[in-house]
Amino acid sequence: MAQALESLCQHTRETALLNSAIETLAWDERTMLPERGGAYRAEQMTYLAGLVHRRRTDPRVGEWLAELATSDLAADLHSDAGATIRNLRREYDKQRKLPQKLVEALTRATVLGQQSWVAARKADRFADFAPQLAEIIKLSREKADALGYQQARYDALLDEYEPHAVTSEVARVLAGLRKELVPLVEGIVGGSRKPELSILKRHFPKTAQEKFGTEAAARIGFDFSRGRLDVTSHPFCTTLGPDDCRITTRYDERFFPSAFFGILHEAGHGIYEQGLRGDWFGLPPGEAISLGIHESQSRLWENLVGRGLPFWRHFYPQAQAAFPQALGDVPLDAFHFAINNVEPSLIRVEADEATYNLHILVRFELEQALINDDLSIGDLPGAWNEKYQSYLGIKPPADAVGVMQDIHWSAGLVGYFPTYSLGNLYAAQFFELADKEIGPLDEQFAGGEFRPLREWLREKIHRHGKCYTAAELVKNATGKPLSHDALMTRLRGTLGGLYGVG
Amino acid sequence: MAQALESLCQHTRETALLNSAIETLAWDERTMLPERGGAYRAEQMTYLAGLVHRRRTDPRVGEWLAELATSDLAADLHSDAGATIRNLRREYDKQRKLPQKLVEALTRATVLGQQSWVAARKADRFADFAPQLAEIIKLSREKADALGYQQARYDALLDEYEPHAVTSEVARVLAGLRKELVPLVEGIVGGSRKPELSILKRHFPKTAQEKFGTEAAARIGFDFSRGRLDVTSHPFCTTLGPDDCRITTRYDERFFPSAFFGILHEAGHGIYEQGLRGDWFGLPPGEAISLGIHESQSRLWENLVGRGLPFWRHFYPQAQAAFPQALGDVPLDAFHFAINNVEPSLIRVEADEATYNLHILVRFELEQALINDDLSIGDLPGAWNEKYQSYLGIKPPADAVGVMQDIHWSAGLVGYFPTYSLGNLYAAQFFELADKEIGPLDEQFAGGEFRPLREWLREKIHRHGKCYTAAELVKNATGKPLSHDALMTRLRGTLGGLYGVG
Repeated sequence: MAQALESLCQHTRETALLNSAIETLAWDERTMLPERGGAYRAEQMTYLAGLVHRRRTDPRVGEWLAELATSDLAADLHSDAGATIRNLRREYDKQRKLPQKLVEALTRATVLGQQSWVAARKADRFADFAPQLAEIIKLSREKADALGYQQARYDALLDEYEPHAVTSEVARVLAGLRKELVPLVEGIVGGSRKPELSILKRHFPKTAQEKFGTEAAARIGFDFSRGRLDVTSHPFCTTLGPDDCRITTRYDERFFPSAFFGILHEAGHGIYEQGLRGDWFGLPPGEAISLGIHESQSRLWENLVGRGLPFWRHFYPQAQAAFPQALGDVPLDAFHFAINNVEPSLIRVEADEATYNLHILVRFELEQALINDDLSIGDLPGAWNEKYQSYLGIKPPADAVGVMQDIHWSAGLVGYFPTYSLGNLYAAQFFELADKEIGPLDEQFAGGEFRPLREWLREKIHRHGKCYTAAELVKNATGKPLSHDALMTRLRGTLGGLYGVG
Repeated sequence: MAQALESLCQHTRETALLNSAIETLAWDERTMLPERGGAYRAEQMTYLAGLVHRRRTDPRVGEWLAELATSDLAADLHSDAGATIRNLRREYDKQRKLPQKLVEALTRATVLGQQSWVAARKADRFADFAPQLAEIIKLSREKADALGYQQARYDALLDEYEPHAVTSEVARVLAGLRKELVPLVEGIVGGSRKPELSILKRHFPKTAQEKFGTEAAARIGFDFSRGRLDVTSHPFCTTLGPDDCRITTRYDERFFPSAFFGILHEAGHGIYEQGLRGDWFGLPPGEAISLGIHESQSRLWENLVGRGLPFWRHFYPQAQAAFPQALGDVPLDAFHFAINNVEPSLIRVEADEATYNLHILVRFELEQALINDDLSIGDLPGAWNEKYQSYLGIKPPADAVGVMQDIHWSAGLVGYFPTYSLGNLYAAQFFELADKEIGPLDEQFAGGEFRPLREWLREKIHRHGKCYTAAELVKNATGKPLSHDALMTRLRGTLGGLYGVG
């Protein structure tokens, strides 16, 4: 029994050695690779991915898992051993359920899909992308059917990113959120108070931004002895080893928030990764629970901490010293209001804390309709524009900045979008409880003290890895199931306060 | 037959995918890795190296090679197919000859050896390093015996870095070189003309050095769309794919030559790698012949091109514009004399073009004596100091800057040193011929024109990969076997001219 577990773990750790090598190649591709190095890099990564896939579907894994199925080790569900067995069982079954042909067809379709998406978006011709998208949706349906599901076909896809989540439950929570969020946004938009945004569009030199952002990331707890910060056009966070987590950002000298809040966001992801137990690296007890929980950590540091007034009570003098020309004459309140600007906009990745979730709702509802065959690809752009009108009050002037703005569908990432909003919801719920248990956090932040919150997150979330599901963890940590209450309370409190509505 | 070759090539190309992934991990380790990421990186690389070793010693490789042994393909020695079969046969046999236990013992001894060397050098206590060095030398002897040799045991070790080279022949050429080089150096040292070195020790800002060095590397032909330049404490060149060659340097704001000539040197290595045929990447026709030939390319661009007056006739105005404060008042001749300073010194890596080879001779002679058991480890420091006195006229004040200055022996690299001098000799011989065939090169350089030389090198050397041995290539290209004549002619011409001796 113990022998089977040891073999299983050893095998999985070795797979992680390979997989983290792929992650390193991928990081390098996005940050360092010479212009013409792409073709060979793709060959390397494809070859290594094949080795990883072969190891993950190795029949010995099935044998070890079968031997462990009825063991005491497996029965202790939330122990490290139990979580290892349970999660690896789940992953193995999923990997084995997908026919090799389908995996290959999906890989091909998404490679072509991304190429087609790039070109179609550039030319603003959705029709050029439509056939590839139709193929991806069709294959995604087949994938869902191969994986199996209980209620909705979409469940099987959602489960890839948010294990154990159920569509109907997510829909219920997001519908509750929408119901309260739309009026709040309408109130803000219709009100008379507006921040002075031009102050954020002054000149913020790149080197000063880098220094200030790095210091802030370190201050909230991103450990640069176990990580680094680089520049890429699309910011991300990746983990290459138990002591090697890398984040990236992009600098816009004419818009302060993009790099700074990007750094806080990615550092939040990184702090989660750095808070996982390194001795379990590559095994479920040392892995993040889900994308939703991951996103909760980034959103928490970016928004709930980083856009709050207490945070800036501590950091604003440093910001003024770092950017004397841009911020020297700007009072703290004006700066704080500006970085909390709420304004319905076309582009998800540029959306504010409140309207962001409405962008997600549009996608969540549309991709369910596509997967259920309730909506044809041809009708997708129209449906997209209708929902933007209804939830955000704006109409995309072109598909390029409408239905084609995101890479996800072209890359086969169907079921991914709701995890962004789940992250916002989880974050608010965690933050509310942390404030109750170890707060008032505001005072700590104003004093530049972020360790108590970080330690609390480590204790309640990070160190458990995958020993609980996201739902279990939220229930355990906060005593409540997931709900939109905490987020709405938070948004009403902060944004409502600033705008004098809610 | 053709099927066996295809299988063999396919297998070897896949091994190269893995091996180039290791190279990427290694590059990353030296340039990017966070402080605490080392332990896991070592695990990753060790694991992947195991996979590579297993693939290289796969019995199927032996079967394919056996099938091909008597084929027409193999008979055509210098064809791509013939070179592939011949070289892979050679490598396979060598890999299979080394007992796994010996490989592991060597790995262990060199890991410990390097740790012990670092500590012993720091404390300047050779005795602390001696036991590990003794073990490494003993295992190197065993390795040589396992690999086999015809004349000298050292041949088997030299062959690892300079395939097909024979110790007696290398010794003969280097002895000829020494005989003429020692009096030349003595003449220079004893003479009255000396350059003004202080001009090189003025302030050369790092960013200006980086820009100037990058432009010069691009100008001589390093293709930055297929490569990059980064900063490391120990400069190197590595190839991560057919279109991904990376070089590094280190900047000293108070000594111009170290980064600049380092960049030219590594760019020379890189131009060779970039000149190999990419469609044969990972297979002998797409691989560098030997370390000696590799070094000939770096030395050629660094010294024969980069330290010449014609090169600076083109680049000096740019240098003065890049470093106006340091070089604005320095005439070209004074600058050129300074960068060609000849002065016996303690440290190999800082040695000038002439005395460098005497540093190599010391090591070459001593490591032969160690391997032949003609010299005990205990007597090594004394022998080292004697030879420095005799060849360079200086006595190391401490073992830390004497016998312990280089990492090579601690890393098990016995037989490596002579390839540095072979590189100098090859370079001079190639350069002499290129000048005859496509020259006068001096005029081209003065006009900023480096393409003819680069194309000539590509045609004569790079594109052949391993289709010829180093000796065959030199004979083919220059019509003469390796000799010290061209290098001595060159040194007498340039250095002799500057110092008024020779």
